[in-house]
Amino acid sequence: MRFSKAIEELKPSDIREILKLTENPEVISFAGGVPDPNFFPVEEMKEITQIILKDQGEKVLQYNTTDGLISLRDKIAARMSTAGMLTTVDNIMIISGSQQGLDFSGKLFLDPGDMVVCESPSYAGAISAFRANQPEFIEISTDEEGMDLSQLKAVLESQQNIKMIYVIPNFQNPTGKSWSLQRRREFMELIRRHKMPVIEDDPYGEICFDSEKIPTLKSLDTDGFVIYLGTFSKTFCPGLRVGWLDAAKPVLQKYNIIKQSSDIHTNSLAQAEIDKYLDLYDFDEHISIINQAYRSRRDKMLEAIKKHFPGNCRHTCPNGGLFIWVDISEKINSRSVLVKALQQNVAFIPGESFYPVSNICNTFRLNFSNVNELEIEIGIERLGRVLKDELD
Amino acid sequence: MRFSKAIEELKPSDIREILKLTENPEVISFAGGVPDPNFFPVEEMKEITQIILKDQGEKVLQYNTTDGLISLRDKIAARMSTAGMLTTVDNIMIISGSQQGLDFSGKLFLDPGDMVVCESPSYAGAISAFRANQPEFIEISTDEEGMDLSQLKAVLESQQNIKMIYVIPNFQNPTGKSWSLQRRREFMELIRRHKMPVIEDDPYGEICFDSEKIPTLKSLDTDGFVIYLGTFSKTFCPGLRVGWLDAAKPVLQKYNIIKQSSDIHTNSLAQAEIDKYLDLYDFDEHISIINQAYRSRRDKMLEAIKKHFPGNCRHTCPNGGLFIWVDISEKINSRSVLVKALQQNVAFIPGESFYPVSNICNTFRLNFSNVNELEIEIGIERLGRVLKDELD
Repeated sequence: MRFSKAIEELKPSDIREILKLTENPEVISFAGGVPDPNFFPVEEMKEITQIILKDQGEKVLQYNTTDGLISLRDKIAARMSTAGMLTTVDNIMIISGSQQGLDFSGKLFLDPGDMVVCESPSYAGAISAFRANQPEFIEISTDEEGMDLSQLKAVLESQQNIKMIYVIPNFQNPTGKSWSLQRRREFMELIRRHKMPVIEDDPYGEICFDSEKIPTLKSLDTDGFVIYLGTFSKTFCPGLRVGWLDAAKPVLQKYNIIKQSSDIHTNSLAQAEIDKYLDLYDFDEHISIINQAYRSRRDKMLEAIKKHFPGNCRHTCPNGGLFIWVDISEKINSRSVLVKALQQNVAFIPGESFYPVSNICNTFRLNFSNVNELEIEIGIERLGRVLKDELD
Repeated sequence: MRFSKAIEELKPSDIREILKLTENPEVISFAGGVPDPNFFPVEEMKEITQIILKDQGEKVLQYNTTDGLISLRDKIAARMSTAGMLTTVDNIMIISGSQQGLDFSGKLFLDPGDMVVCESPSYAGAISAFRANQPEFIEISTDEEGMDLSQLKAVLESQQNIKMIYVIPNFQNPTGKSWSLQRRREFMELIRRHKMPVIEDDPYGEICFDSEKIPTLKSLDTDGFVIYLGTFSKTFCPGLRVGWLDAAKPVLQKYNIIKQSSDIHTNSLAQAEIDKYLDLYDFDEHISIINQAYRSRRDKMLEAIKKHFPGNCRHTCPNGGLFIWVDISEKINSRSVLVKALQQNVAFIPGESFYPVSNICNTFRLNFSNVNELEIEIGIERLGRVLKDELD
């Protein structure tokens, strides 16, 4: 069989291959990007699902509209507006997790050879999704405040076939870094000047350990350049595969056409479950309970890193999200660290897959949301030993 | 914004636009391809969901493997094997409805300018899904036994860049026609000679009013050329968006990579619900109840057509599935019939969207599964009057 050119070149996700190894219960896994299932509202889901099936069973089990359940879209629009992103139900489409929004964005904007700009490093799942359309990637460095705008400006001024910019300004995957408000404002000025579509991926914005959130790009966007991706996978339950996409109406219509032929619509029972949860329970309270736990785990992990890692390891100190990013001596390859860590029953994700172009082998990503504090202490201690051995 | 070339050209589905008009409860709609929600096992779903959330709530609400729930894949493999399609759990991936299998197949095989062969007419949703990859379509006529193999042979021998063949041999959408066993055998001989991948879309195979089913292409395939798409949307509940794909292992691996970056995995609560239903209930009994009802409706519709349509309307007499296909005088355009029918509160789908290349305007599709016998009598009578008026 002769496959399409894009698919011939696509490789299985490195991350998902490593995650398979972590299925062994003895492994302390810092690898996934996974919420702690202890916080899933299982009892509430039982109650909610009974109500939905009783009141509207035939409706939620039937085919539904591609845009998604209007009452859920309504609630999402209200939540976004409260968070400073003024929007309406007509700007929102329900998608099967925000990953689907990445796949659709690739389809919507990219022809083979077109260029897509992203942070360096960036989310591996976005890179794979975009690759299906055979684009070229341009990586832009980030500092402590966000994307380097002089680099971005130079690229936007010199390249004609850049079709979109993909960014994760809040508690980025993989680094955990957030952009400063100032940098976001300057970025949006550049975007307005170049009239460039921006995919703002925001799965972690609500997993925020600070008392104040920094406004999203969407909330600074007056002209409809920002396409915003949200999800219930980190704050509610990823197994339901429900996320959303907010875009200017003419752009949303294009996404709707793509969704029609991709999977017709997202599971409507799942949409109704989340809608009913938002009706009956205090979602913000739920999120704040998760955030308290994750914040303690982040603290514990930073403390353990300080105690056990070699002194020349640099790492981020995120104020939210699920990840800490580690930068080790250039003499060490994080893949060979992983091989040795797995022998000690500890797992993480080597940084390589987060760079679409660069060949950087001395970084890795640690997840702190789905491990308890004891596991963090033991796992980081073991990992520290492996790193010190490698440096010797 | 500059969109990708494929998307610039994609138009909203005609069918979904018409379906919006049928939301008015006064409209008798023969338009959808929709099962009757009265047969959805709502009470069973309540019971099942409670059991799943109690026993494995955290598991089904968490991220899961891209392939899908192993126990569901196992049961699907067993059902397929019983139906003559010898297969294993390792050949099966769960997808979000069989529509997703069409989208993925386009991605897997088609580069811009590649050719895809299909029946004339064919499923409009498949045509849209493939169009996202900018292929050229080759339509092959069908007679009462299936695809015209002399046409197909000529095309396969003369064209170098045909990448796949898409067919619906059982109770086809839109015509309701099925291929004879003899035609299927000859088709597979041709396939073996040309080593050509075949997408066999089989959403209607189990909606069979005959006592004996004709073997699928998959069951006649000894060399792994057939990629088989199945779904629970017609026999169970479409709102859950659960289907499956069966392919040779190296091909399935490619589909798995595509699914990883498209939506990670299909809603796992829905997978577990179907799995548990298959455990606790008699699915074949459920299907036979549906089939009895649909068979009566088909009978009623054929009878009403005979009584009310003008004598020169030809139509199919399907032994299963959801549709009857009508061929009217070439003097009449089925779109203008639709406009007048909608004024009489009757809807159907004009045939145009089912031809990727041909410009044929005098056919239309009638659905009989989601209307009762009284609605069929009244709706077909009204439609008959519109057709007779148009012929005058």
